[in-house]
Amino acid sequence: MSADRLQALASRFASLKLDALLVSAPPNVRYLSGFTGSNALLAVSASGSATLFTDPRYSIQAAQQSPSCAPKIVRGPLSAAVAHFAARKRWRRVGFEKARMIYSDFASLDESLPAGASLKPMPPLVEALRSVKSEAEIALIRRSVLTNSQALASTLPKIRPGVSESEIAAELEYQMRLHGAEKPAFETIVAAGARTALPHAEPGAARLQPDHLLLIDMGASQDGYASDMTRMFSLGKPARKLRTMYNAVLEAQLAAIARVRPGVTAAQVDRAARSVLAAHGLGAAFVHSTGHGLGLEIHEAPRIGAKDNTPLQAGMAITIEPGAYIEGFGGVRIEDTVLVTASGCEPLTPTSKELVTL
Amino acid sequence: MSADRLQALASRFASLKLDALLVSAPPNVRYLSGFTGSNALLAVSASGSATLFTDPRYSIQAAQQSPSCAPKIVRGPLSAAVAHFAARKRWRRVGFEKARMIYSDFASLDESLPAGASLKPMPPLVEALRSVKSEAEIALIRRSVLTNSQALASTLPKIRPGVSESEIAAELEYQMRLHGAEKPAFETIVAAGARTALPHAEPGAARLQPDHLLLIDMGASQDGYASDMTRMFSLGKPARKLRTMYNAVLEAQLAAIARVRPGVTAAQVDRAARSVLAAHGLGAAFVHSTGHGLGLEIHEAPRIGAKDNTPLQAGMAITIEPGAYIEGFGGVRIEDTVLVTASGCEPLTPTSKELVTL
Repeated sequence: MSADRLQALASRFASLKLDALLVSAPPNVRYLSGFTGSNALLAVSASGSATLFTDPRYSIQAAQQSPSCAPKIVRGPLSAAVAHFAARKRWRRVGFEKARMIYSDFASLDESLPAGASLKPMPPLVEALRSVKSEAEIALIRRSVLTNSQALASTLPKIRPGVSESEIAAELEYQMRLHGAEKPAFETIVAAGARTALPHAEPGAARLQPDHLLLIDMGASQDGYASDMTRMFSLGKPARKLRTMYNAVLEAQLAAIARVRPGVTAAQVDRAARSVLAAHGLGAAFVHSTGHGLGLEIHEAPRIGAKDNTPLQAGMAITIEPGAYIEGFGGVRIEDTVLVTASGCEPLTPTSKELVTL
Repeated sequence: MSADRLQALASRFASLKLDALLVSAPPNVRYLSGFTGSNALLAVSASGSATLFTDPRYSIQAAQQSPSCAPKIVRGPLSAAVAHFAARKRWRRVGFEKARMIYSDFASLDESLPAGASLKPMPPLVEALRSVKSEAEIALIRRSVLTNSQALASTLPKIRPGVSESEIAAELEYQMRLHGAEKPAFETIVAAGARTALPHAEPGAARLQPDHLLLIDMGASQDGYASDMTRMFSLGKPARKLRTMYNAVLEAQLAAIARVRPGVTAAQVDRAARSVLAAHGLGAAFVHSTGHGLGLEIHEAPRIGAKDNTPLQAGMAITIEPGAYIEGFGGVRIEDTVLVTASGCEPLTPTSKELVTL
């Protein structure tokens, strides 16, 4: 599996005129080598062989996870060891991940490389491979989505007036782990009342009131793969204005899902959601993009936004999550994890999209 | 508070010949402005005024958290807006955080700046300020440490043979939140049996056996501030070899703590732990540094390692965590969060360091 991925990556080096690529983003290192440590550089040669550089904390783990990548255990900065290795291999054009490498790592690598060798900034090559998932990855995403929905279902009976946002978040994350996740895929968002108007609200000590609107945006990370879902709840009968807003966002979400199929661009899917909300007078209230790819990271390519013209491909896993936010009143967001299939798409999230009254 | 910190930072600009500094690391942005969103650039001028750039998801939050930083809401990449702002201000020498900025953000800023203006790579200026904590910050770290120890105490009754590493991790993190944390400060490490030899083991499905050694390395993040603690447990009577190893690591940990006082360097504290373990024949088994600063991040300056000659100062909060790891047998690590005081130090972690038999 790793070997196939390395070959697919290395097959691009000739046209990019690269002798090697230094992979620095941890999820990219994991994708290519299996190594899950936090400090690593993976040097991939044009023949598709890979060498893993990491530090002594990970010597046992690297040998277990990445035996085919000949792990090199380095004391001190990895850059000097990698530069030495590049010199021995007589690499001249060495690519690096420009959107992933910290400036000072770039600078110290650049300084350490021998005369005649140079660093070349590269676009997200590994991320492009990662955007189309294998069958095995799709199975992992399905399981993560299921865990996430189970965690919400197990938590719902405990949500009632008097419970705080952060208690609900604690319970959701606890249930994720009991259902098999290793951690949340991102900081769980639980927002009540007017705080739902903050798209990225941090759960606080605020306690639910009997008339509160509640937004829960949660994701599990299971065997490394993310899921993502947003659902809304009303404590007590929802006000008419809220119901109207909810129905508009749901209509936008269903319109975007209906547009998902191979060949349609990410921007076209975004437009499908945006035009529905605009027709309901909520165009300005929709302040973010419609969704994003997900996999080993919670935010991956493509971005389902106005400026991303990536054509969708079967095997991409994306979120569809339009929203509308009105300061002082509240916000609504509805989000599913969706798989692009050969004939269209399959929404993976099994949780109902009714505006549930708790 | 923010104003004092901004003034302290800006007072360094004259000697660095800077007209402004672009702060990009989220914890540095938070420290200076109060803003907790994930996407921001803070432009600090030589007069100590600051302007916050972020995206539309955070327009309400930025106005609430950072009213004194005149938040500017930007659609699209922040770099173009910041470059435009720098041009209007006629800044010529603009510093950036070289160890924090992604290469491509540097490159697009560099490209967008007007002729005559240039980017200057800067060392960790804000991190240096952050390494010495204020009274208010120390109070927050104390509370985080207490929460962390309470979470462990609440979980211990549930640890017994048959429970899995990941179930214990789930319970620890749940208890942290119930005791007031907003999240774990890092991925909780729960390792049983020979897996304790992996310094950064990820909790797995492995179930505790009646003769298992258990390592728990956990930290809470509460109101943004981290705590960090490692404790060891034995299920059943510990083997003699284990007890010997445990006592050696404990002796090393106490020796390092005894060395902590203002003026002593981080490297000297590291040496105190290292020489004890070497005397016990465990020098090669101690594969990491003795500790690290902590605060808004779990790893901060100084690094308590052989190469960091930073003199300790009163108000620094650090970990002291020597360990010894023997592949196939197991590992031992003992860790406290410690405050450097005017006269020496105060270990903050209240949890006993006995090798507890569960």
